[in-house]
Amino acid sequence: MNQQFTDTSNQAVRHQIEAEPGIYMRREITEQPDCWRHFLRDGGGSIDAVARQISKRNPRFVLFAARGTSDHAALYGKYLAEIQYGKPSGLTSPSTTSLYHARADYRNVLMVAVSQSGGSPDLLTSLQAVQRGGGITVAITNSPDSPLAQAAEFSIDVLAGKEHAVAATKSYTSQLLAIYLLFCRLAGADGQHAAHLPDIASELLEMEPEVAGLANRLRYADRLVTTGRGYSYPTAREAALKLMETSYVSAQAFSGADLMHGPLAMIDEKVPVLAVQAQGRGGAATAEVLQRLRSGSADVYSVGTPEAVKASTGGIVLPPGVPEELSPLLEILPFQQLALHLSLQRGENPDTPRGLRKVTETT
Amino acid sequence: MNQQFTDTSNQAVRHQIEAEPGIYMRREITEQPDCWRHFLRDGGGSIDAVARQISKRNPRFVLFAARGTSDHAALYGKYLAEIQYGKPSGLTSPSTTSLYHARADYRNVLMVAVSQSGGSPDLLTSLQAVQRGGGITVAITNSPDSPLAQAAEFSIDVLAGKEHAVAATKSYTSQLLAIYLLFCRLAGADGQHAAHLPDIASELLEMEPEVAGLANRLRYADRLVTTGRGYSYPTAREAALKLMETSYVSAQAFSGADLMHGPLAMIDEKVPVLAVQAQGRGGAATAEVLQRLRSGSADVYSVGTPEAVKASTGGIVLPPGVPEELSPLLEILPFQQLALHLSLQRGENPDTPRGLRKVTETT
Repeated sequence: MNQQFTDTSNQAVRHQIEAEPGIYMRREITEQPDCWRHFLRDGGGSIDAVARQISKRNPRFVLFAARGTSDHAALYGKYLAEIQYGKPSGLTSPSTTSLYHARADYRNVLMVAVSQSGGSPDLLTSLQAVQRGGGITVAITNSPDSPLAQAAEFSIDVLAGKEHAVAATKSYTSQLLAIYLLFCRLAGADGQHAAHLPDIASELLEMEPEVAGLANRLRYADRLVTTGRGYSYPTAREAALKLMETSYVSAQAFSGADLMHGPLAMIDEKVPVLAVQAQGRGGAATAEVLQRLRSGSADVYSVGTPEAVKASTGGIVLPPGVPEELSPLLEILPFQQLALHLSLQRGENPDTPRGLRKVTETT
Repeated sequence: MNQQFTDTSNQAVRHQIEAEPGIYMRREITEQPDCWRHFLRDGGGSIDAVARQISKRNPRFVLFAARGTSDHAALYGKYLAEIQYGKPSGLTSPSTTSLYHARADYRNVLMVAVSQSGGSPDLLTSLQAVQRGGGITVAITNSPDSPLAQAAEFSIDVLAGKEHAVAATKSYTSQLLAIYLLFCRLAGADGQHAAHLPDIASELLEMEPEVAGLANRLRYADRLVTTGRGYSYPTAREAALKLMETSYVSAQAFSGADLMHGPLAMIDEKVPVLAVQAQGRGGAATAEVLQRLRSGSADVYSVGTPEAVKASTGGIVLPPGVPEELSPLLEILPFQQLALHLSLQRGENPDTPRGLRKVTETT
């Protein structure tokens, strides 16, 4: 494992991080609407070209490969691939090729590898196995010169700009946007709804004082549970990861459906539940699960519709009028702010989380 | 959601559960070698017939659908499908069909739906969507008369016998065995290695006093992390779920690779790590990750090779000579015992976990 986030070894940057804890994470959270504007303006051409080439090859199955935060973007992609594009799809485990050297017949398989850095050796091995087996490969990265982007048949740059904070924020939502537009094009849709998203996101980010209040409420929690269903399940997963990375809290994500199996037993008055309940079918299904929870003693905080927040102990209301399949780009923003504020209020510095580095080189 | 675990509403059974906490869970853990003997003796014929029929149809892609404990059996199946059978494969999200009514072209797709009860409506919806789309469907259940088993083109009964405990144990390992033998046959192998497994498991289960000692050591832990890679990753996931279900501890599973991304930040001297390090590539890869952890202050307990346990704070040694791809059937046994003993030592009753029911009817 190598340290590739070289900026923190630079003396000047180190001083800045120590003088203003969270400066990078806050800046990159705030930059997101501009990142999306940038991609909507300059990224569409590459998406169009890639989608045209892929469509000619008529893939029958879609496989996603990713790790960490990018794995949540891949999970979002899996919903789009099945629901919008109508192709059977799944997440692959990089270790089947990197550890066990699995060889499969990948003809008519589209592999989408998602990575901020494009530097994980096991993703590269996975992608190369698909290429050798006759499949189509696309890399979605924030690093067009990376080994992964260079090795893939098609490469999409999410154009988020260099990410300094160890906790990925702007690269995540830029991945979501690129994946959304790619599958819109593959499904023959224009993806026009995304055009309004940057302005809506700017409005939502202004709720930061409310989010800081929520962080204050959660300050003494040791354990948190996040939940969401359908398109919002990736948000629940990513929210839990951000909270773990920055605040050292134990945050576990469950799909509403899985929560009812076993994990429900560990939720009590000491374990607050953070739920994603956007407009749409996933949110409605989550509301049903939460009714069961509220009949117990758990506190539930929601990011979602006004009705969902009203039925909860508290939460953040999402701006209306966003289609469910685009909502994950917005939903995660309050959770990123929550991770930042919870970390700061606990006296930590989210820009220097213990034990973490920017690129993970598992093989 | 309906209560279908009707036995606990029976007055006599209720008395027995209250008189001897954990009686059902302990009994079913102990029954496992006999369950496997039963399946090896009587289940092989149905596996052979199903594998022959599937092979004629030449699937190109394997999709698994499951929830809860069965999801971990499905994850194990995904490794087998990719590594042994050489087919691209993935886990599907039941909600894409049950909530969003996704319609896809499932020709040449083999769907394997795994469920103890065969009673989850969303799995049934997923399976029916694959049937309508031209795919091949197999249900692996412990309930051959269930809606899922009846709806599937092919049905495999894991023959574990009625499962009374709310925390699934014998149905899980019986699912693993059925999945192992199915993919052996599909890959043209005889699966003979499994023949010795029941005797080896009986030997391993005799380590119960050592496991009880480990439970005693972990008695005050609020949070636990489990980890494993490759074939052992499903074990890490299932171990975490058992601990959550019975002991209300917050147990989180990470693949060794993902652990290095973000979650590492939440592991400190208060969070013990339970690692699966069996003989083979997954275990070797996990050992590399653990070296990084041990350079911190975390306590690591291992289930695995003598070397792995020796390099850890403590643990349980697995019997030698079991191929890596079969090892998950053994690895989970000490964790099941650990979940039982931790629950009892904390004054809980693992047979009546709060908030849990045997069948989860999410739609």
